[in-house]
Amino acid sequence: MGYQEFTIEGRNAVIEAFRSGKPIDKLFLLDGCQDGPMMTIRREAKKHDTPLKFVSRERLDQMSETGKHQGVIAYAAAYEYAEVEDILRAAREKGEPPFLFLLDNIEDPHNLGAIIRTANLAGAHGVILPKNRAAGLTATVARTSAGALNYTPVARVTNLARTIEELKKEGIWFVCADMDGTVLYDLDLRGPIGLVVGSEGEGVGRLVKEKCDLTASIPMKGTIDSLNVSVATGVLAYEIVRQRWGNR
Amino acid sequence: MGYQEFTIEGRNAVIEAFRSGKPIDKLFLLDGCQDGPMMTIRREAKKHDTPLKFVSRERLDQMSETGKHQGVIAYAAAYEYAEVEDILRAAREKGEPPFLFLLDNIEDPHNLGAIIRTANLAGAHGVILPKNRAAGLTATVARTSAGALNYTPVARVTNLARTIEELKKEGIWFVCADMDGTVLYDLDLRGPIGLVVGSEGEGVGRLVKEKCDLTASIPMKGTIDSLNVSVATGVLAYEIVRQRWGNR
Repeated sequence: MGYQEFTIEGRNAVIEAFRSGKPIDKLFLLDGCQDGPMMTIRREAKKHDTPLKFVSRERLDQMSETGKHQGVIAYAAAYEYAEVEDILRAAREKGEPPFLFLLDNIEDPHNLGAIIRTANLAGAHGVILPKNRAAGLTATVARTSAGALNYTPVARVTNLARTIEELKKEGIWFVCADMDGTVLYDLDLRGPIGLVVGSEGEGVGRLVKEKCDLTASIPMKGTIDSLNVSVATGVLAYEIVRQRWGNR
Repeated sequence: MGYQEFTIEGRNAVIEAFRSGKPIDKLFLLDGCQDGPMMTIRREAKKHDTPLKFVSRERLDQMSETGKHQGVIAYAAAYEYAEVEDILRAAREKGEPPFLFLLDNIEDPHNLGAIIRTANLAGAHGVILPKNRAAGLTATVARTSAGALNYTPVARVTNLARTIEELKKEGIWFVCADMDGTVLYDLDLRGPIGLVVGSEGEGVGRLVKEKCDLTASIPMKGTIDSLNVSVATGVLAYEIVRQRWGNR
């Protein structure tokens, strides 16, 4: 496991990276350069929704590690995803009941990073994301996780609902964040637990929610709709911490 | 109360805005321009701690809405700050013991917005910021507050430590977020309370911390340093909610 950011420099190398499906976080292109390979790169960037920035030759020279950027430098992330089994093993090795975060539809990289940071500090053993409909582990996620991405394993699964079903066989209970759920302080959140959180707009998907054992809501005493999703996840996670570590 | 952002363009208009006490968030000045009115604007900006940026004529032309910027464009927020007394009155009118957020050194507008959002939903009666060393209520703050800025009063004070001293006379207790404090679950956080939170890097300033009655820490079970400040504020605020609404 671990996270590292690196640059890919030069036209062919960058085109190759796009075509092999490497996750490219950001692209820097020489301003005003519009030849064939550059236009190919711009097309690939558009296809992959990669943010690009046009900069001066001086800026590229400064950024370059090889000195051979040919007018293009890409930032890519090399993160090795964990397996769900690695996360369960981490719990076993610590002699603790598993404590997992499962994130449905969290697309904002700042929120994803802040949530991985919270997972680390709340003592969760890992984070599980669905392969589709989730932000990748980009440089922004790594930065906003404040280093947590190097310690807290993150696994990707094809079908979150099916993963929940399988993990229930291991004795894990699942609690789903839901505005219409039971007030979290009234729930028993001790023991092996998976905290399931969805995006601010949509919440947790219906199929995933149906697999959960409990739904938990945060009391809302104000006038607006909902907390920021990383704040809400923090509040839920720390109620689990409070109960788990004997403060109930 | 309410929030709106707009630009002020032209030398006299900007000087006038400063002198009438309008809160200016940011100032863009034509690079290299040092005549009399420009120097007056720079003095006013310094006096009001307004961040300023020197930019090219092209940039100003792009930003300008009137086409008549004369080398200066100011971004102003039309947010009417509340007075501390307004916040206390809001508590009295609801028949609740006051619950305040006091933010020291929160400079990141995303965090400030998320915290104002949390204040609203946790049922706090208002937020108090120091005039210096805090982000202004910019468009980013308004957006990330998800509308809370329209409902939750925000007051600015010259000296946060002195404000705490005055509010103590009203019977309010102050709890300061501090990594070395007592674990929050072991504190009695009921009754009239002010939650004092500092920036991620520096925490709450020494002078402010010394005025507080209690220090509260969040248990850290992980490997990295600290939670995101808006997540930490959410965890602390909701422990207050839990105790205040009878779940202790």
